[in-house]
Amino acid sequence: MEKFEVHILGCGSAKPTTRHFPASQVVNVRDKLFMIDCGEGAQIQFCKSRLKFSRLQSIFISHLHADHCLGLIGLVSTLNLLGRTAQLHVYLPKGGGEVFGPVIHYFNWEMTFEVIFHEFDDKVSEVIYEDRSLTVTTLPLEHRMPCCGFRFDEKPTPRHILREMIDAYEIPLSEINRIKNGADYTLADGRVIANERLTTPSDPPRSYAYCSDTRYMPALAAKLQGVNLLYHEATFCEDDAQKATARYHSTASQAAQVAKEAGVGKLIIGHYSSRYDDESQLLCEASAVFEPTILARENLCVKIE
Amino acid sequence: MEKFEVHILGCGSAKPTTRHFPASQVVNVRDKLFMIDCGEGAQIQFCKSRLKFSRLQSIFISHLHADHCLGLIGLVSTLNLLGRTAQLHVYLPKGGGEVFGPVIHYFNWEMTFEVIFHEFDDKVSEVIYEDRSLTVTTLPLEHRMPCCGFRFDEKPTPRHILREMIDAYEIPLSEINRIKNGADYTLADGRVIANERLTTPSDPPRSYAYCSDTRYMPALAAKLQGVNLLYHEATFCEDDAQKATARYHSTASQAAQVAKEAGVGKLIIGHYSSRYDDESQLLCEASAVFEPTILARENLCVKIE
Repeated sequence: MEKFEVHILGCGSAKPTTRHFPASQVVNVRDKLFMIDCGEGAQIQFCKSRLKFSRLQSIFISHLHADHCLGLIGLVSTLNLLGRTAQLHVYLPKGGGEVFGPVIHYFNWEMTFEVIFHEFDDKVSEVIYEDRSLTVTTLPLEHRMPCCGFRFDEKPTPRHILREMIDAYEIPLSEINRIKNGADYTLADGRVIANERLTTPSDPPRSYAYCSDTRYMPALAAKLQGVNLLYHEATFCEDDAQKATARYHSTASQAAQVAKEAGVGKLIIGHYSSRYDDESQLLCEASAVFEPTILARENLCVKIE
Repeated sequence: MEKFEVHILGCGSAKPTTRHFPASQVVNVRDKLFMIDCGEGAQIQFCKSRLKFSRLQSIFISHLHADHCLGLIGLVSTLNLLGRTAQLHVYLPKGGGEVFGPVIHYFNWEMTFEVIFHEFDDKVSEVIYEDRSLTVTTLPLEHRMPCCGFRFDEKPTPRHILREMIDAYEIPLSEINRIKNGADYTLADGRVIANERLTTPSDPPRSYAYCSDTRYMPALAAKLQGVNLLYHEATFCEDDAQKATARYHSTASQAAQVAKEAGVGKLIIGHYSSRYDDESQLLCEASAVFEPTILARENLCVKIE
């Protein structure tokens, strides 16, 4: 199965602790790396997760709070130091290019590559990235400032053609792609061989969604249907539910409620408040609502299968 | 003896590694904290060294390369989140205020405290900070851009008055400070008691100097005379001496040569190139020239006695 995995680089929140880095993660889709959020220290954590800078394709910034994007300047500076030549695409809310452009320019007055800012509309859900195998769609969230989550969807892959059928019916190479895409095959004598005899089904497309930072949004579940893996922020415990609402954050059980209603495969919670010495209470509360929940931690890699 | 110690927060160089953070350290003088350089992740390392944000007084930035100052934006944002009210003084080369002011403002549009930028002239050595117990003097260095090191000098402290002499001669409280500062004491009958009988000598003033980043500067030794502890960059081994010169950095043995000629008490080397898997060769080369050399490492604390 093709690679589709999520690396957690940081899962703390704004106030620094000795245990967590601020928000950042990397989605590896077939060895193309897509970074989501880029908190301070993301480049150090990127190295610790043994990822390769040369494979970094794009960066998606959910919102312009310091703990979600301040690592961008240092990361771009390092890529420049390494002599990168490929364009780097940065997707972020409106205004982000104006904030980061000048300061990146100041620290890198001779650039070896181009940084291209793509500013998205935080009010609508839309496809902001697409390649042969993947789409990335924004998920408008409810936070104290314009903020979007991201949904990564694999595109459907062709069916698997059966080697022995190619040989048995002497199917020419030129027909292979049509058959992989579902076509039947007609022999010289006019007989039609049904596609189901020639192929086995393709792997179902997989998906990952990232939702941070956000207040509890019951409506979000509809947009997360069928997601294999969901990362949802869980800044607070149930005891601090009022703080969560006031600060436009979620509790662990609210994150789990969204996961449950969306019927996702697995939930990772993160963006922990610095007030908790460990996250066992958060896990306990989330698991009570949605059992297949795990805690994010730095340099954790979760494979989507 | 009053506290005077140096905490290493980061001793790597520009290219990130899994072993080191970029440049930052904290000088603790009698529980006032002075940060020198503020590379990315400095605030996280500050927490790891168990230092208190409330005691942070000033920040001194040697030069405006990314690996020496990018942590400033996040650190200021955290201090703001914590509701700091005391002014924060940031000393840095010309142009620094213009770079950091707008971006700090963007991420902190409601500030609970004032950040005051003091831009220094990198061409002359001058006192840029002074309080009752300390002066900080710039040390112009030779790097690819305007860059200064910093020398921290304790002010001479008063002599220690002998308790038993106060009692024996019934010295009034109003005379104590004069005597501590060296005055003799005249009794009612006209007899003069020499200061040396009433006091013991004060502790000699201590000093610390930070020199990073710089090419080997033989002339620097004259400005480092009498320094108890010297931090000098040692980016390269002797095998890479040509690279050191070309990139305006020093080798370990050059750092040690400066320490030796200045007759400092102890040398800490740091700012290690990412090319070395460990720093044993750097230590070996420096120690051969100047024996009392130690390697900087993250969260090391060196007391100056």
